[in-house]
Amino acid sequence: MDPRRAETGKNSDQIQSGHVYHLALDIGGSLAKLVYFTKNDEHIVGNEKKKSPLKASGISNSSRNSPVLNGRLNFKKFETSKINDCLEFINSMKLHLGGCQQPESPGSQTITIKATGGGAYKYADLFKEKFGISLDKEDEMDCLVAGANFLLETIHQEAFTYMGNQKQFVWIDKNDLYPYLLVNIGSGVGMIKVEGDGKFERVSGTSIGGGTFWGLGKLLTKCKSFDELLDLSYRGNNRAVDMLVGDIYGGMDYSKIGLSSTTIASSFGRAISENKERDDYKPEDIARSLLRMISNNIGQISYLTALRFGLKRIFFGGFFIRRHPFTMDTLSVAVNFWSKGEAKAMFLQHEGFLGAVGAFMSSDKHGLKELLANQKVERPPSKLSFSLDQTQVPQQDGELNGDESIECSVYGA
Amino acid sequence: MDPRRAETGKNSDQIQSGHVYHLALDIGGSLAKLVYFTKNDEHIVGNEKKKSPLKASGISNSSRNSPVLNGRLNFKKFETSKINDCLEFINSMKLHLGGCQQPESPGSQTITIKATGGGAYKYADLFKEKFGISLDKEDEMDCLVAGANFLLETIHQEAFTYMGNQKQFVWIDKNDLYPYLLVNIGSGVGMIKVEGDGKFERVSGTSIGGGTFWGLGKLLTKCKSFDELLDLSYRGNNRAVDMLVGDIYGGMDYSKIGLSSTTIASSFGRAISENKERDDYKPEDIARSLLRMISNNIGQISYLTALRFGLKRIFFGGFFIRRHPFTMDTLSVAVNFWSKGEAKAMFLQHEGFLGAVGAFMSSDKHGLKELLANQKVERPPSKLSFSLDQTQVPQQDGELNGDESIECSVYGA
Repeated sequence: MDPRRAETGKNSDQIQSGHVYHLALDIGGSLAKLVYFTKNDEHIVGNEKKKSPLKASGISNSSRNSPVLNGRLNFKKFETSKINDCLEFINSMKLHLGGCQQPESPGSQTITIKATGGGAYKYADLFKEKFGISLDKEDEMDCLVAGANFLLETIHQEAFTYMGNQKQFVWIDKNDLYPYLLVNIGSGVGMIKVEGDGKFERVSGTSIGGGTFWGLGKLLTKCKSFDELLDLSYRGNNRAVDMLVGDIYGGMDYSKIGLSSTTIASSFGRAISENKERDDYKPEDIARSLLRMISNNIGQISYLTALRFGLKRIFFGGFFIRRHPFTMDTLSVAVNFWSKGEAKAMFLQHEGFLGAVGAFMSSDKHGLKELLANQKVERPPSKLSFSLDQTQVPQQDGELNGDESIECSVYGA
Repeated sequence: MDPRRAETGKNSDQIQSGHVYHLALDIGGSLAKLVYFTKNDEHIVGNEKKKSPLKASGISNSSRNSPVLNGRLNFKKFETSKINDCLEFINSMKLHLGGCQQPESPGSQTITIKATGGGAYKYADLFKEKFGISLDKEDEMDCLVAGANFLLETIHQEAFTYMGNQKQFVWIDKNDLYPYLLVNIGSGVGMIKVEGDGKFERVSGTSIGGGTFWGLGKLLTKCKSFDELLDLSYRGNNRAVDMLVGDIYGGMDYSKIGLSSTTIASSFGRAISENKERDDYKPEDIARSLLRMISNNIGQISYLTALRFGLKRIFFGGFFIRRHPFTMDTLSVAVNFWSKGEAKAMFLQHEGFLGAVGAFMSSDKHGLKELLANQKVERPPSKLSFSLDQTQVPQQDGELNGDESIECSVYGA
């Protein structure tokens, strides 16, 4: 029996037994991302109220008769290596029961949750064993693209550029969004040419990604977490470990080919010539150099890949970025430098949750996606119920910890 | 007075005072490379003997009247950080005096040596101070390209492919050599589109190069030298530190997009999840992972750059390679993988000395280049005097230490 029956108390004939759409997972190599909906009980809205705008847009399936729930879409992440914390959280929130507080009945049907990422395969048995949850596996690329397309098309102020400490939101014209290059920077980096909904191809990638930053950073510093390493990088100076053009040219530029004396000739190359050990370097300098090396490399390969396929827009997503100003700036500068200003790096507010949002959308058998998309169409952006709740947005860049939420409305079933 | 006057004793009117062409330098961020000619006294050949082949090829400048010296072109390297060792060597060999044993006369003219690389600027004062040598600076890219073109056009069995432990020499058709991409992997990496002699453009590069390998390797292991680190990598297994697709997918392939379970998803990504410190990892595993990360990245960017400019041939040079089988194999596999077999990675026997050879050639005011080039034209490859002396070639791949020599003939002036 679907546990939400007791909660909504309506349209029970439309509720598919055993199907929970309140939670979706994206379990990657480093992080497990959760997207789940929590209802504001006081905001249950009758189905009549929502009927007309949907009708006006031509949607006529049965879901329009469902109640519309107001609430929040929540985002949360865990380290994949601490997958048990994730399971504990799901259990404590009863998310696998659709938020219902009723105890599990031993004889109940298997509950199915949409999941993507490699961990959907790797941890399938663990979920089954612990809670009797069956992970309904969705393809990682499908979800990434579905999540990115949905967010870009639907969410107001989702995309922005970042360069020279200037953040600028980008108005996305749904009719002029495609094609674009989606660069997802997780542990590794995937590059996907996106031409429309469900129309995409993974065209490139690199193994030098977030896992490299944190893996090398862990071995080179005494940092205890990715975020600590990232914080450190704010204070560092890469000149201490990188070999600059000026180091080779005795302080001079190599002007003939347009390389200034401060251009990095060789990342970590200064460590060659100095009689120093790891612990003689400041961890912040190492963090800075690592971040710059990896961001610059991703920017360069992204640009070359975009160029190859004639794509002018590059959207960067994935949890490596974390709205970190220096990371975004380095990626932007790299794209700008290599493209001579022709290509543009853009970022997404929900960068780390593309796959999880895609998985959440894939569970939509109740018109959820249509409802949200149509709300966008029917309402002016400023009044979108599925839009960033500004009170929840971190006020300072780089503070996003992935545990925020956004206000939205969904069908009750 | 030119010190070689006393040595050759001929054509003194053609010897330009103060000009020594026996030695040229390429001083990079990590290594200083020397190319110098040493004469076999017993092999001085009269100018008459060499006259006809040159005449036949249409060369009619005065240099054809010079004596032809048989001898060896020698290659030697030093760490740039130990530039004094290099100076000591030059001094002990009296190379700056053109090999002449006579003491320096205090009142003698300034001796000029061709030099390239950033160190030609950085260490100019040091050379002046120590030996009164003036470094005649040649542009780094000019020399690299001149050296590569010369070696590829002139030296028999200079270029080869390497994949799956198979080394195959490539027959270079001088008329079908251009255009090609020259990827020079020194401390950093430069990528140059070469369309002919003196016709080239630096089109790309990356800061993740040999300096990164050795710099990070030094911080992560207790290796004392680049070569020790490279040797270590033979015995290592990158699986210990890299996150593979199978690690994320619970041992499975991500077959939908053609990624096998053994594909590296994230270089050093495994270090994230394991509760280990730097010293808990085997240095050989770290060395292997570093080498693979860097070689693969260079291969990928090289391919994308070659593709961008429609170049099918990629020649890799620079001292990072050192004929190291695993390095060459990784570069080849990367180019092959990303190009789907369309582009080919090739290597050069004298990979580390392209710039130094170019600088050596640039000093040619005596028909040296013409003589060597014409010897190639006039003689069947097997009898080339400027060809690899097989007795000097390391019998095993990866053993090249840069201190070898090749037999050749040059004009005495």
